[in-house]
Amino acid sequence: MADALDRLKTRLAEIADLDRVARLLSWDQMTMMPPAGEGHRADHMATLRKVSHEFLTADETGRVLDEVRPVEDSLDPDSDDARLIWLARREYEKARRVPSELRAEMARAGAEARPAWIKAKADSDFASFLPALERNFELRRRYVDCFGEVEEPYDILLDDFEPETTTAEVRELFDELKAELVPLIAELRDRGAADGFLNGDFPPEQQEALAKELIGLLGYRPDTWRLDPTEHPFASGPGIDDIRITTHYHPDNLKSLFSTMHEYGHGLYNHQLPRQIARLPTGGPCSLGIHESQSRLWENLVGRGMPFWQFFYPRLQRTYPKQLGGVELGRFYAAINRVEPSLIRIRADEVTYGMHVILRFELEQDVVNGRIAPRELPDAWNAKMHEYLGVDVPDDAHGVLQDMHWAGGMIGYFATYLLGSVMSVQIWERAKEDVSDLEERIERGEFGALRNWLGEHIHALGRKYPPQETMRRAIGSTIDAKPYLAYLREKYAPQAAPSGT
Amino acid sequence: MADALDRLKTRLAEIADLDRVARLLSWDQMTMMPPAGEGHRADHMATLRKVSHEFLTADETGRVLDEVRPVEDSLDPDSDDARLIWLARREYEKARRVPSELRAEMARAGAEARPAWIKAKADSDFASFLPALERNFELRRRYVDCFGEVEEPYDILLDDFEPETTTAEVRELFDELKAELVPLIAELRDRGAADGFLNGDFPPEQQEALAKELIGLLGYRPDTWRLDPTEHPFASGPGIDDIRITTHYHPDNLKSLFSTMHEYGHGLYNHQLPRQIARLPTGGPCSLGIHESQSRLWENLVGRGMPFWQFFYPRLQRTYPKQLGGVELGRFYAAINRVEPSLIRIRADEVTYGMHVILRFELEQDVVNGRIAPRELPDAWNAKMHEYLGVDVPDDAHGVLQDMHWAGGMIGYFATYLLGSVMSVQIWERAKEDVSDLEERIERGEFGALRNWLGEHIHALGRKYPPQETMRRAIGSTIDAKPYLAYLREKYAPQAAPSGT
Repeated sequence: MADALDRLKTRLAEIADLDRVARLLSWDQMTMMPPAGEGHRADHMATLRKVSHEFLTADETGRVLDEVRPVEDSLDPDSDDARLIWLARREYEKARRVPSELRAEMARAGAEARPAWIKAKADSDFASFLPALERNFELRRRYVDCFGEVEEPYDILLDDFEPETTTAEVRELFDELKAELVPLIAELRDRGAADGFLNGDFPPEQQEALAKELIGLLGYRPDTWRLDPTEHPFASGPGIDDIRITTHYHPDNLKSLFSTMHEYGHGLYNHQLPRQIARLPTGGPCSLGIHESQSRLWENLVGRGMPFWQFFYPRLQRTYPKQLGGVELGRFYAAINRVEPSLIRIRADEVTYGMHVILRFELEQDVVNGRIAPRELPDAWNAKMHEYLGVDVPDDAHGVLQDMHWAGGMIGYFATYLLGSVMSVQIWERAKEDVSDLEERIERGEFGALRNWLGEHIHALGRKYPPQETMRRAIGSTIDAKPYLAYLREKYAPQAAPSGT
Repeated sequence: MADALDRLKTRLAEIADLDRVARLLSWDQMTMMPPAGEGHRADHMATLRKVSHEFLTADETGRVLDEVRPVEDSLDPDSDDARLIWLARREYEKARRVPSELRAEMARAGAEARPAWIKAKADSDFASFLPALERNFELRRRYVDCFGEVEEPYDILLDDFEPETTTAEVRELFDELKAELVPLIAELRDRGAADGFLNGDFPPEQQEALAKELIGLLGYRPDTWRLDPTEHPFASGPGIDDIRITTHYHPDNLKSLFSTMHEYGHGLYNHQLPRQIARLPTGGPCSLGIHESQSRLWENLVGRGMPFWQFFYPRLQRTYPKQLGGVELGRFYAAINRVEPSLIRIRADEVTYGMHVILRFELEQDVVNGRIAPRELPDAWNAKMHEYLGVDVPDDAHGVLQDMHWAGGMIGYFATYLLGSVMSVQIWERAKEDVSDLEERIERGEFGALRNWLGEHIHALGRKYPPQETMRRAIGSTIDAKPYLAYLREKYAPQAAPSGT
């Protein structure tokens, strides 16, 4: 039996290796690869995905899973081994339904659509991207079909990013959020603080030095991490001791500070995953929602909070004396927390952010359920932007083409951004309860207590449990919109509307 | 039958994909990876090698190879398909003898030895590297044993780098070279031109700009190539449209110019491999010897030649007016071609270079044949350095620890450097015959004719034939020491010894 378990572990470790190699290839593709390398990369990604899928779905995996059945009953159900068997069985049964050729095709179509999307976005030419987009949706349709008759096809897609989470649950949560966010946004719009000083001349080299200083203070070690510039920031890396985060330096604003803290949160999660099972699937991150809770926590709860800026603002002023020397902390704080409906999700403030996600979540379901065709997405997008945020989309580059996810075939992914934002507040509140002087520490530039708390309570659980069970074990409750809404209301609308700006 | 051939191609393409992914991982390891990532990288390399080896050696590969047997007779024996079947059968039969666990262990031991070697070299502490080195030799012993009783165990290792080439052939060639090189070196030593102006203050940023200008002129396109700094320059890349070359900028000399041209030669070969079979093993490079013939051709025959410097020296002077403004072309040319026995292979001049390689070729055989133990390598190394080059090795960092090959498990590799140097001269002579104004073109900075000639005659053959057959088809003759020795004599000792420097 023990031998069967060892064989299972070896097999799963090799599958995890292949997946992590694919992750490194994606990182390389978005940071280092010469543009003409796209063709090879599509082949290589497809082959890696196919091989990893074949390993997982091999009859031998099924046999080993059968062989370990007797041992399961003797294990502590919370032990690493018991959870590994649970996860392996879950992934095996799911993967067995999908032919490896389809897996390879999905990977290839994703890799091939990316350059089409880059070009289409640059030219704001949705029509040129449409064939690749249609192909990605069509392949997801075929993917969903592998699971037979299902009540809610979108469940299948969502489960790949947020395991054991249903569309109905998310819809209910999002409807609760929408009901409060839409009026809150209407109430707060045009009340934003002046923030002109956040725009100006910020040379990228200086921003890079500042970003490195910042994450160095948060807890970045150059022997295990890299920070590189890229067009669309993301965090990745092939293992806990090799963390790759990226950011984008806009020469005319300081948004890279926040995107760097965001990616730092992702990176820290990857870096503090459970070392003893690092090479096994249970040693990976729990879900994209939990992942996002970590990035949003560092970006917003830490990075847009007053304690952090009490510590860091003097350093920022020293870096940009001409631009910020005369701006008091309070004005700066108000400016970085200005609420203003806008076009681009990744630049949205905390209050309007959720509606960008809800819009995508709804549109994806509309396409997957055949209510609209991919070619109708621009119009549907623009109509919802007007309805939810009151903004008019000038062109597709600033609308339906802004995010790369659909080009990469990541359909069912967006919801996790808002799930993560909601959970980030719950986690933050609990961390503050457990570490009573957390904010005082941050004011002094001490981030170790927060890192450790997150490591112990969230990161150490890896992928041993589905996201909601992870939340229950980490903070004692599952996802809940109320703390998030209360936080937004308290931070952004603490009293009756003040008079003007 | 056609169907079997298609299945064979699909399988081989996937194996090639995995190998090319491994190549990208190696590039990343040596240019980008944070140091702590070594552990993951060893796992990932081992898994990739194991999977690729399992694919190649699967019974299914044997079955498909049997199925295509009838089709083989109907094919033109020089057709891409016929050569593919030949190569696949060769690789299959070889790989079948080696358990995939051993393959994985060899890959892992190589990846793990690298950090031990880096540290040992930094500390000049051979003893700390010895266990890793012993393990690499021991694994090669086990690898050789997979092939049963062989007359010359070293043949097995050599064949991995220079297919279908025997130790006896190489030994005969090298003995012929040694017999002429040792006295030639003795004759030329202490006659070197003054070259003090090649040492000075050369800021790396400026060298990088110059290196990019240089390879841009030779024919580097930023949409398909990258040039990055690294400790030990190499060329790599996952495919013909994604070429990664590296170089090292020494702040106190201009050696990066030559190492950049060297790696450019490797990169150009990889870039001009046959596109129609790019994803198949026959679309890869022929051998390391042929690869090296390309790098040495650009580094030495072009890059240390007078025509090239007639074109490029004015640009170099403009970049370094203080250092080189007062140095005439003739003096510069003499300085970059100064012959002087020295400690480090990669910095050796054209004349002494060969003896560095012969020394390693002999020592490797001594260890593989059990004549000396790995722990005796430093003494044996130092004795040969004295005998062949008349230099005394001050410490192991400048001796037995200087090259990374043994750390990476690349035993049997070194000979290809000298094979390549010898072939580079034969290829160059033939290119000059075919392109009658080749040197005039280079004098004018026109490198297209040489690129195209190499592409057509050498690169287009890919791995369709073993190296000597490739040479015969490309230039009409197999490897021969005479043109190489004649070239060295004519360039370096054209008449009786002149009087002093």
